[in-house]
Parts: sequence; C-alpha cells; structure tokens
Amino acid sequence: MINRTRLLQKIEELGQIGQDPAGGLTRTTFTPPELEARNWLIQQLETINVDVHIDPAANIWGRTEGTRKGAPSIVFGSHIDTVPNGGKYDGALGVLIALEILTSLRERGVKTMHPLELISFSGEEPNPFRLSTFGSRALTGKLKKEQIQSVTDSSGNVLTERLEAAGGSYEQFNETQRNPLDFAHYLEVHIEQGKRLLNQGIPVGVVRGITGIYRERITVQGQANHAGTTMMGSDRQDALTAASQLVLKLEQITTESPIAELVATVGELHVYPNAANIVPGEVSFTMEIRGETEEQIASVRTQMETEFASVERQRDVVVTRDVILDQPGVPMDEMVMKTMETVSTKLGHKTLILGSMAGHDAAHMAGVTSSGMLFVPSLEGKSHCPEEESRMDDIEIVANVLYETILTLDSKGNDE
Amino acid sequence: MINRTRLLQKIEELGQIGQDPAGGLTRTTFTPPELEARNWLIQQLETINVDVHIDPAANIWGRTEGTRKGAPSIVFGSHIDTVPNGGKYDGALGVLIALEILTSLRERGVKTMHPLELISFSGEEPNPFRLSTFGSRALTGKLKKEQIQSVTDSSGNVLTERLEAAGGSYEQFNETQRNPLDFAHYLEVHIEQGKRLLNQGIPVGVVRGITGIYRERITVQGQANHAGTTMMGSDRQDALTAASQLVLKLEQITTESPIAELVATVGELHVYPNAANIVPGEVSFTMEIRGETEEQIASVRTQMETEFASVERQRDVVVTRDVILDQPGVPMDEMVMKTMETVSTKLGHKTLILGSMAGHDAAHMAGVTSSGMLFVPSLEGKSHCPEEESRMDDIEIVANVLYETILTLDSKGNDE
Repeated sequence: MINRTRLLQKIEELGQIGQDPAGGLTRTTFTPPELEARNWLIQQLETINVDVHIDPAANIWGRTEGTRKGAPSIVFGSHIDTVPNGGKYDGALGVLIALEILTSLRERGVKTMHPLELISFSGEEPNPFRLSTFGSRALTGKLKKEQIQSVTDSSGNVLTERLEAAGGSYEQFNETQRNPLDFAHYLEVHIEQGKRLLNQGIPVGVVRGITGIYRERITVQGQANHAGTTMMGSDRQDALTAASQLVLKLEQITTESPIAELVATVGELHVYPNAANIVPGEVSFTMEIRGETEEQIASVRTQMETEFASVERQRDVVVTRDVILDQPGVPMDEMVMKTMETVSTKLGHKTLILGSMAGHDAAHMAGVTSSGMLFVPSLEGKSHCPEEESRMDDIEIVANVLYETILTLDSKGNDE
Repeated sequence: MINRTRLLQKIEELGQIGQDPAGGLTRTTFTPPELEARNWLIQQLETINVDVHIDPAANIWGRTEGTRKGAPSIVFGSHIDTVPNGGKYDGALGVLIALEILTSLRERGVKTMHPLELISFSGEEPNPFRLSTFGSRALTGKLKKEQIQSVTDSSGNVLTERLEAAGGSYEQFNETQRNPLDFAHYLEVHIEQGKRLLNQGIPVGVVRGITGIYRERITVQGQANHAGTTMMGSDRQDALTAASQLVLKLEQITTESPIAELVATVGELHVYPNAANIVPGEVSFTMEIRGETEEQIASVRTQMETEFASVERQRDVVVTRDVILDQPGVPMDEMVMKTMETVSTKLGHKTLILGSMAGHDAAHMAGVTSSGMLFVPSLEGKSHCPEEESRMDDIEIVANVLYETILTLDSKGNDE
C-alpha cells in the first residue's frame, strides 16, 4: 500500500513548480519551468536509489531490476508537462503515483520478478512545436529524427536545441525506440477530465479504450456583400448563417445520439472578411468528432453530409472539406482491465468501465505492449485549467489499485 | 442633356487610377493613389474653367456663379475614395456625373440663378483612420479639429499630415464648416449597391431616406472545456453553439419581417480560445440592424431580447451587450424627391422610390439643407468589389435626370 501523506506532499511540491502569475501552472514542454520540474523528478528518483536514465527524446526513466533474469519490464507513468495555465494533476498525478509506488516497494523491500520502470514522457500536451505525445511516439517508433529536424515554434525556438537542453539527443533520437519485447505491460493513472466518475460516485475508472479522433477543416464559401444594401433572403449568400446551421446540426446529432461517449465540437472558427458591415463571404471551421469506434464516427459524418448538401442547396453556398486528423480508437488490454477490476473489488472499491475521451501516451504504448489505464475522478470534471482538482481519498484508492495491479501482473508472469 | 461618350471616357480615365494588383481599385483616402485621383479631378475642373477650391478638410469644390446675387448654391457630387479592392462606380460616378453636368452646362452657355457647386468629399468610405464620411461631417460641423488631432492609422501614419498632403489644413480645419444658408440643396447620384432596381427593371431610383444603423457588440460567456472529455448536453456551456443560435434567430426575424428594407447581419465574430480541441468558452460578435425608422429597428431588438434570455436559460451562458452605434435614419427632402420623380417621368423613365441601405455623405448634408439622392442600378447588386458595375444606358438616364432636376430646382428658386 502507498503512503498517502508522502504522496500528497509530492503533489504539493511539484505543484509549486511553474506557477503562472496568470493562474495555474504553465510547464510547457522543454521550457525553463518544465526543466525545473524534470530536475525535481530526477532528484526524487535518485533519492530512492533507482537507476535514472534520460533517453534521446528526454523521457525520464527510473528502473528497478527484477528477480527473474531477462524478464520484460512493467512500465508505468505519465507526463509532467502541462498546458498553459493548467492544473497540477493532469499528467503529474500519474508520475507521482508511480514514484510513490516505487518508493513504497523499496521501503518494504518488495522484490518483483519483472523489472519495474517508471516513465515520465516528454511533451504529452499540445505544445508550441505542434508535437503532442512527443515522448511516447518516439519510444514506439512513430516519431523519427527527420520529423523533428527543422521544427521551430512561432518565436523561432529550435526544437532540437530545447530537446538537448532537457537532456535528449537529436543525433541519437531514433534510438529512443525500444524493442516491444522489452515490455510486459504499460500502465498509466490519469485524471478523468470529465464528470462520469463524479456523477456516479465511483472512485476507480478502468479505461476500456482511448477515443478515436476525427477532424475536418470545413470551408463555407458564400459571397461577401454590403450588409445594408443586400436584402435578406435569396440575395444573400451568408457564409456565417450557413456555418451556424452546421454548428447547431453537429451539436444536435451528437446530443441526440444514445451513445454518450460520442461527442463533436466546433472549437475553431474564422470569419472573412470579418467586418460589422459586410455579409460574411467565407467561414472556415474545424469539425471534431470523437468516438470509440470508426462506425460511431462515420455515423455522425454521414448525417452531416446530408446537412452539408442541404445547406449548399438552401443557401447557395459551397462547402469544401479536408480531413486533417483521422486517429482511430485504441482499445486497452482485456486482461489488464480485468486485473484492475478484480484488484479494485478485492480492495473494496467500485469501478466504472469507461472510454477515455482524451488522447494519452497509453494510446501509443498500446500499439507495442498490453496496456491499461486507471482514471481518478475530476472535481466538476474540470481539467486544463487552474481549478483542476481531484480528492485525496480518490487518489489514494486509485494509487493502491495500481500498486496491487502491478504486483498481480508481476506474479502472473503472463509475458512468456 | 449630358454627353454620354464623354462621361464614359471620364469613367474609364478615373478607373485607371489606383488599380490594385490584387484586383479592382484601392484608393483609400489620403493615400498616393487617391492623391493622384484628386489631381486628376482638379485638372478636369480647371479645364472647364470653374473656380476650384480645396477646403481645410480637403474636400474638392468646383463652383460656377449664379445670375442672382446672393443666391445660395445648389451643391452636388459624391466622393472619389474607394474601399480596398473596390470598383470604379461607388462614389466616383456621382462626382463624374457632376463634372459632366457642369461641362455640358458651360458648353451650352446655360446660366443658372443659383451658384452651382460640385463637391468631391474626402474620405467617405471606411478608412484606416476610422473616420468615414470625413469631408461631409467636417462640412456640416460634426467633425472638429480636436477629434482629428492625434489620430493615426495602425501603421502610425498621422492623419493631419496626410490631410495636409491632400491640400487640407489642420489649423483651419473648423473653417471647413459652412453656413447652412449658403446652400439651397444638396444632390447626389450613387450606385444602388443592391438589386432592387435591377430586379424590377427600373433605371431611376429616388431615395426616400438613408437607413438607420444600429450596432451592438455581443459577448456570449460560456465555459471553455476539453472537447473530448466534456459530454454533450448539460455538461457543456458552449459559447459558439449559443452564438450560432442567436445568429440564426437574427436572420430568421428579419427574413420573416414583411419590411424588405429591414436587414440584420452578424458580420464579425471571434471565438475564444479558438482551438479545434476546446469547447469555445467565449464568443463575441457584432449584431447590426438597419431600418428606416427607430420603431423597425426596435422591433428586431425586442425579439432578440427574448432570444438572448432563452439562450441564457437553455444553455447556461451569459450574454452581455454594448451598443456601439445608434445612427437614426435620415429622410430625404419631399420636394426634391417629387422634383426628381416629375423630371424622370417627363423624360420617359420609370422611377422606384426606395430607401438607401448604405450610409452616404447625403445623410449629413440632409441635416443642413434640403437634400436628395438618385440611385443607378448595380449589376448583380454588387459593390465594394472589382465586379461592381452599372450599365451605361442607366448611367446616362440618371445623369440626365440629375441635370434636369438641377435646372428645375434652380428655376423654382424655392430657397427664399
């Protein structure tokens, strides 16, 4: 079992690093506050005498050897970078629980058959270099040297320079990738970032899969015209009223769907020429659909296609569409899920099986090893903001479920 | 009667000045291409031997004396500045018809009782100094020295320097204002910028009044949230779907109104934070309503107030509103309108009495003297774009209606 007081103290300590005068924490990947957090974590790992290693993608590893020779590792962790003005739980909680588990196990002198490896992934969050899940993609061979070669942010900062300042290496970047046979499992605790656990009063979320994300950039081409002299009705080809109809239809389709974990959002929208006295001639916007299966996403797309055609006909506008992201859903490992449920029940806690509506490093890890995630309830469902919070009672429960899950999976030795 | 060939030639000549590589004409007020157009106009006026005068607001005047001592002037004209990538008719046509009328009258040796004054107003169009109808406001005492003192555009250009380069004077700016007793009438020809004349096949528009313009900046405050983990329905306080509902309601109210010349537009809209994966937390937009009377505008406002309240309730958002413009409608002079109609009928042309849905210098002139406007049909209703065009047949007809209107008003001598 873990030490709740110590875990709380570490949450508070790491939560001091990167405080933003504008509120919350800003630990954007590879910036000075994030480097400070990295150094703090490295020091914590050194204090408990695990083998610390920084790989070429600047992922931070803390390893303890197993008793069985050549056994693959049980890897667990998350990330410590944050969005701008984010909170102290998203990502950090998964790393700190991993740290607490390693600390407890060593304190108790518990030996595992498998090596245990804590990982703190680089750059999980959207960042100025436009490369989220940076570390997990590098580790699983999806992000290569060529892709990071000439990347800069909008201020001209060079990614490879920042990477090296964090202890990574551009030259050896491709060596970040590890042989899948090195891994027995990947396990991650994360805050839910939604209200499902909270609403049902359940402390432990066992993640069934990570949502698929589908995005289109949609352009509605109408005709810019004088806002005074162009009469209402058929004289107008108003791109914004046309886009508004599409925005509302997308909301309606997903709200009326019986599948709760099928959501859609227009988060970004631009109007041209965007002047009070001109009927909008063009509107471009993103349409994002998230769902666990391709079929669910396709059903929304099909219904929207009918609406696109109808808006084009009714409003004399032209709708063009570009797919900008089509990331399929990733299921978690059935056996790992089952283990998490069983452990949780044994410890006396209810579990809720639920989909992860956000992307996570586990989505990439699931491609190379049997993976699982546990969710901690988020107060008010808030995340990516200073108000992001989880109750210490829930955190302790989930940390202990992970602790027991690791030991159970270790004893099963199902990796042969 | 006017000389159609000569008028066409002048339209073509002035239409060469300020051609923009990106299409159409860009003669923004007080920029080098507009100064070139000014010089061209001054030269034309000098060629026909009228008294040329540039006032402190850089309005260009061309005057011929009347036969009756002390009689007030019949003033007529428009403006030669354009919007970026505009056309060669908006504004310029009114000035060129005025020039052609003066030329024809002098050619024929026609003497008028009243002085005739052509005016080409400075800066009628929206411009980088955010001062449209610059010249007519200065002439009617609505724009004063203090208001232009420290105005710059976004590139740091100083308005008063540009004004002086165009022949105006900052020191004497307030002397632009003239005694209303100097004026008998103000008359202006302008393109309609709409399709009403075209749709009814009528060549002469007699303007009944200039529309009132009412604008609010509306802010919808919702809650920015994760586009994946925030379920559809009551978990979301999406400012953009709320705004979309308002945009569509505004369109519906004005489209369903039996009053054709009551129009409303959301031309400008901004989304915050405006990212594909974040449920919009705030949307601000402009709501513009144009109508001839305050009552018409108020009726739309009242219906929208019901919708604001209902959206706030249904969607758990907060709507705040600021009035940013409340410019009442301005009626044209009944006697001048009647004269225009009678003249047109005598010349064998149908007329349509219609409201001007755009603002014009005549709106300010109507505050100080009996004023009237004639509209020329716009092909496809287009204006403020390179495709802006009017048929030469229609232009000739309206130019002759103005010619005869001036002579009729002159002979009436209704100014005593």
